[in-house]
Amino acid sequence: MLTNTRSDRVKAVRALSRRSVRSRTGEFLAEGPQAVREAVAFRPAHVRDVYVTPEAAERHAAIVEAARAAELWVHEVSPEVLAAMCDTESPQGIAAVCRVVDVPLEEALAGLPADALVCVLTHVRDPGNAGTVIRGADAAGADAVIVSDASVDIYNSKVVRSTVGSLWHLPVSTGSTVPEILDALRARGITLLAADGAGTTLLHDADLGGPHAWVMGNEAWGLPQEVRDACDDVVRVPIHGHAESLNLAMAATVCLYASAEARRTRR
Amino acid sequence: MLTNTRSDRVKAVRALSRRSVRSRTGEFLAEGPQAVREAVAFRPAHVRDVYVTPEAAERHAAIVEAARAAELWVHEVSPEVLAAMCDTESPQGIAAVCRVVDVPLEEALAGLPADALVCVLTHVRDPGNAGTVIRGADAAGADAVIVSDASVDIYNSKVVRSTVGSLWHLPVSTGSTVPEILDALRARGITLLAADGAGTTLLHDADLGGPHAWVMGNEAWGLPQEVRDACDDVVRVPIHGHAESLNLAMAATVCLYASAEARRTRR
Repeated sequence: MLTNTRSDRVKAVRALSRRSVRSRTGEFLAEGPQAVREAVAFRPAHVRDVYVTPEAAERHAAIVEAARAAELWVHEVSPEVLAAMCDTESPQGIAAVCRVVDVPLEEALAGLPADALVCVLTHVRDPGNAGTVIRGADAAGADAVIVSDASVDIYNSKVVRSTVGSLWHLPVSTGSTVPEILDALRARGITLLAADGAGTTLLHDADLGGPHAWVMGNEAWGLPQEVRDACDDVVRVPIHGHAESLNLAMAATVCLYASAEARRTRR
Repeated sequence: MLTNTRSDRVKAVRALSRRSVRSRTGEFLAEGPQAVREAVAFRPAHVRDVYVTPEAAERHAAIVEAARAAELWVHEVSPEVLAAMCDTESPQGIAAVCRVVDVPLEEALAGLPADALVCVLTHVRDPGNAGTVIRGADAAGADAVIVSDASVDIYNSKVVRSTVGSLWHLPVSTGSTVPEILDALRARGITLLAADGAGTTLLHDADLGGPHAWVMGNEAWGLPQEVRDACDDVVRVPIHGHAESLNLAMAATVCLYASAEARRTRR
């Protein structure tokens, strides 16, 4: 059992809380049983090391068993070592160093179904919002999530936690510019729908009948004019009461579920 | 201008961050320009005192003007006094002591339209979730929000902040027990739909054609069996991908917007 909180290994894992270290190593830390379980189940080849306290190894025996069955390294560590490794205050006794799972834009868009549903995040800065939208895209059955270069790092521990495992469930691409993303989608015949409170088309009037991508903007200032202009339509979720708006994650989920429902009735 | 951070007035305002003080005084603090603006615009009779720094008074001149036009007390305070009054770290220079706005259950349910849409929160403990659901209910055009007695205090500063003003937009009732709430709704012919991942009816198959109430449970463990049993149907949002679930605020918003859309096409 690893007990030395000052060991090089602990320092190396802890350093993954820094974006620069994640970029250099191509690794990040998945904290908590839910994240580790989904990483092991869906992308075992991307899991490098699992760290677990004796107590958590008992409580989450199924996860440890699945990791061992996938021939992954499982290391027992003291609670102090795990706490020293993790960014979250209560990582619930288990964490895993994972290799990044994002893929190039072309790969994420390869093999999309004819009625593709894609979610594009541009300039999203709040980790919780970004993660929650990825979770919502997964739940709505989106085929891919594309995160533009000017957005929050999806391997930030708060993003990973907010995805509740969805990070490992569907193709995610990062690092492309917004024009590159929109061009690549358009080249595949995918309709571009900007989701923005400034839209004149209401969600229930939007054309969700064919392959389409929802383009979501920053949580505070939405989408810049040039991105709205580059899309085929600008759509807003109707506000029926006196609320000024919905937050990004809520608006995104409502849009994505409208698409899922259109797809369901069509199929 | 009030500059003494140790004055009795500052202490009295600051004390409103404690639930017991809010209960005793029937007052709470609305922090930040958005909350103060909505309180002044929608419920001026419930605003007791507005506190604003000179800098914020310039930046948010329209709010101060509206408050003065409504014959409310507007007090200039130093930034230090405002910070000492508030719970949030950056209250953006403005806050208002408000009288509680919740109404008895009977009053909240009086005058509902024939196709009423009601949102019931039971055992919701997380302030951010509760506030976001109230905001979503407002945006979806719900006619009332009922928060059961075993839930978070809606005057908690995090709840108030998360509602982004919606707390003042629609009738909100608190303090009744879950059985009292369900009985009162049923007596008015309102269909009770429990929103729960354990539901067997999928959202798109739910009967949203008549007056109905969405009954939402705790963010972690959902609705207890007896509440699900007491409802007319238990409905779940379909999960199309590999996500295990949606969070409470997302699921509630999707359900409420499905109701709003059903109502829109019917009207």
